[in-house]
Amino acid sequence: MLPFDTLIIIDKSIALPVYKQIANQLIKHIRNGVLNSGNLLPGTRVMAAILKLHRKTAIAAYDELSAQGWITVIPRKGFMVEQNLSEFRPRKWDERTAGYSYNSAMPVPFYQSQLPAAPSLTPSPGFDLIIDDGHPDPRLAPLQLLNREYQSRLKQPQAFRRISSAMSQGSPKLREAMVSYIADTRGIKMQPDHIIITDGAQMSIYIAASLLLKPGDHVLVGEPGYYLANQVFEQLGAHIIRIPVDENGLVADAVEDACRKYKIGLLYLIPHHHHPTTVTLSPERRMRLLEMAEKFNFIIVEDDYDYDFHYTSSPYLPLAAGNHHSRVIYIGSFSKSLTTSIRIGFMIAAADFIRQAVHLRRLINLKGNYIQEDALAALITNGDIGRHLKKANKLYLERRDHLCTQLDLHLKHVVQYQKPSGGMAVWTVFNKAYPLKTIAQKAAKCGLYINNGNLFDTPENSYNAMRFGFASLSLTEISEAVHILANCI
Amino acid sequence: MLPFDTLIIIDKSIALPVYKQIANQLIKHIRNGVLNSGNLLPGTRVMAAILKLHRKTAIAAYDELSAQGWITVIPRKGFMVEQNLSEFRPRKWDERTAGYSYNSAMPVPFYQSQLPAAPSLTPSPGFDLIIDDGHPDPRLAPLQLLNREYQSRLKQPQAFRRISSAMSQGSPKLREAMVSYIADTRGIKMQPDHIIITDGAQMSIYIAASLLLKPGDHVLVGEPGYYLANQVFEQLGAHIIRIPVDENGLVADAVEDACRKYKIGLLYLIPHHHHPTTVTLSPERRMRLLEMAEKFNFIIVEDDYDYDFHYTSSPYLPLAAGNHHSRVIYIGSFSKSLTTSIRIGFMIAAADFIRQAVHLRRLINLKGNYIQEDALAALITNGDIGRHLKKANKLYLERRDHLCTQLDLHLKHVVQYQKPSGGMAVWTVFNKAYPLKTIAQKAAKCGLYINNGNLFDTPENSYNAMRFGFASLSLTEISEAVHILANCI
Repeated sequence: MLPFDTLIIIDKSIALPVYKQIANQLIKHIRNGVLNSGNLLPGTRVMAAILKLHRKTAIAAYDELSAQGWITVIPRKGFMVEQNLSEFRPRKWDERTAGYSYNSAMPVPFYQSQLPAAPSLTPSPGFDLIIDDGHPDPRLAPLQLLNREYQSRLKQPQAFRRISSAMSQGSPKLREAMVSYIADTRGIKMQPDHIIITDGAQMSIYIAASLLLKPGDHVLVGEPGYYLANQVFEQLGAHIIRIPVDENGLVADAVEDACRKYKIGLLYLIPHHHHPTTVTLSPERRMRLLEMAEKFNFIIVEDDYDYDFHYTSSPYLPLAAGNHHSRVIYIGSFSKSLTTSIRIGFMIAAADFIRQAVHLRRLINLKGNYIQEDALAALITNGDIGRHLKKANKLYLERRDHLCTQLDLHLKHVVQYQKPSGGMAVWTVFNKAYPLKTIAQKAAKCGLYINNGNLFDTPENSYNAMRFGFASLSLTEISEAVHILANCI
Repeated sequence: MLPFDTLIIIDKSIALPVYKQIANQLIKHIRNGVLNSGNLLPGTRVMAAILKLHRKTAIAAYDELSAQGWITVIPRKGFMVEQNLSEFRPRKWDERTAGYSYNSAMPVPFYQSQLPAAPSLTPSPGFDLIIDDGHPDPRLAPLQLLNREYQSRLKQPQAFRRISSAMSQGSPKLREAMVSYIADTRGIKMQPDHIIITDGAQMSIYIAASLLLKPGDHVLVGEPGYYLANQVFEQLGAHIIRIPVDENGLVADAVEDACRKYKIGLLYLIPHHHHPTTVTLSPERRMRLLEMAEKFNFIIVEDDYDYDFHYTSSPYLPLAAGNHHSRVIYIGSFSKSLTTSIRIGFMIAAADFIRQAVHLRRLINLKGNYIQEDALAALITNGDIGRHLKKANKLYLERRDHLCTQLDLHLKHVVQYQKPSGGMAVWTVFNKAYPLKTIAQKAAKCGLYINNGNLFDTPENSYNAMRFGFASLSLTEISEAVHILANCI
């Protein structure tokens, strides 16, 4: 008999149950050919004695092995290693495969090898402190509540039969819940066939642009603007026309000039807390943009990801709540109210557009996480989301004010900013005498990550500015970050 | 004082804690203006008496209200409804908004309003039994284990600081775990910079095709083939060339002929259990395809979503494990080993291609669910995934054999099929005398959903065939489904 006492080493300090440790090590020995097909294993009583364990443990280990199909019980003989195991090792088909591995370069040039340069959004590890450009604080989010709903759905097997069939438009429960939630919070009137659930608002932007734009079309965006939306439009071959943004948002006269010069495919708009400058679009301009959309016959993509976060003033109703004749495509997100890792966004538009969006969404990613979408529907209906937003707004208000105080105290002569009425970041413009690139390098040495300004610079303009995300930082973390920045100047 | 005993109705039969019921109803009354800014609420002792509750409950309710910012404590006066609440109601900006809602049609034609017709993958509700085209059985998947790992990560706030920064290539932990997992199971040698985690294998197909194809390019696919891949290629403006598929997979000679006629951008390949016919690509053809890729200078997109499911024969190593000089882009999925609602797939390719894939993935959907990706990494490393696959393969083998017996017993003269060596579906070709459209209609009346064949028909060919997914059905459900089909004929 094989020396199982040396072949099987049990480590009681690790979490893995002992019977699984035994099973796994026996599997390893079968894989390595120490144990071969047809070999007999000692009975559970003997094995237990060898390993100095209770017999129950040996039985559990053997049960696991036969459940996994490694051994079979032979009546009056014992436990035998399966005969046909060898069959289940992958078969080689080419002796020359050995040792081959992937290169760093594709052997042929590929069509989109020259996408617009992608500024890194991912600070390399090793930073103690990260200033993001406006993320929520996941430490506040009702992730435990969401997961409780999720967990309870995992326990309803019958639910799985339903989710087995693709649900590319998003869970009907969630779309139902959204109809009243959106009406209550945003005054937008719609039906479930006017909405699609996407993996975050970014996917809604990508899908809307893909359906609307053909190469060569003209797109109006804010300058400065949201780089990831601009890159989508460029990647689809559209020409971007940059419209200046002042303290009231997109400059309407500049939009009208552009409409007279070019045929406009779509206008991309962030009505609340324009990214990056955080300004809110004024009522007058909301009306003028809708009038121009009619007059010049273009579509408005309204990206209102920041609607839920207002501190000292309350939000304006979206353009999508206005008299838009289905010219407005409304986009929102739950990744901001929960955490950026929960990828749930939505798009509201005319039903025929949504039908095509569903089709394209299926080609990109069949469907979202249906169980999680149902769980979110429950949190919306029972009010947990609303309660969380209330609490988060209170805290983010404190954090915003604390950041502004700190900036005034320590960076007054270096940084210019307008206190935002909502959102998760302050648009901080640095004195050109202090280039952000240099500051970012110095800050990194002190364990602080900041973007070096490349996110917002365009071929035409360099802003030497960054979005100082305050929502994800505690008051102490904010003070610390500002302190480090001050020391880097 | 207001009649709070009638204003606040407590329902002890529902799950929502009493203090939250009180808080929610008071919020409702504040919202509706029954309670106004500046109003004083009765003290906790009085309120408790009115509602006949323990004072603790009233205190908890008031704490909730002030935590949410609805009331403030006025020393020596009591609890007052916040002054500046009104500010936080959305502001209208246009009186004409009232009553406006979305249309069924977009006012302007949009570029991609004519995407290839999308066969419905979603049986409308009300079916007792669904024959899918090859989904796993979520009732077997280790979703509880995955969620335990997920849950434990939610309890580590420091982890959230890391996930706050975008991770478009997928969690480093998961990519690390994949390197050895893929080497062990598939013999593919690569490094973390050769892999990107996507939301399901479909997104990998979409991204690979978007990077490789420009409008007018020629793509080789199997006939019959995977409709959702073909639709991606068509949607990107490529010309599809359909290569016949026999019992050994793609017919290599037909591939060579096509290569002599056209410049081929890419070849889309499903080496194991070709979709829909479930055949496996033979070793000889694997070698020939790699040789042709060299000779005619094209890229092979190897979609090996079914690799983990083999019953009577073991899988061949992928082409990506062969001598491919980075010409093979390898795509796989965990949605098949877990459930289609867990959207985790991956793509392995040359590093420069993956870098561009990461950039495009960011434009489509910033990143995946990072917490879940870390949880999956743990299940891969501790062997839970491997154990689950072993168990699932045992069960799916039984289900496959049971289905084939049932087909022989009850549909022998109507249905032709080859028993598949693996995968989750049997390709069942119906006698043309019995059109699937009719059968599907009759079956629907008996509560059974089957696809009516439109998934696999092409302009050139009508197969009158469907994929009979057995993996997601219990033995009883399989018998029942076959029984209903027999009665519909």
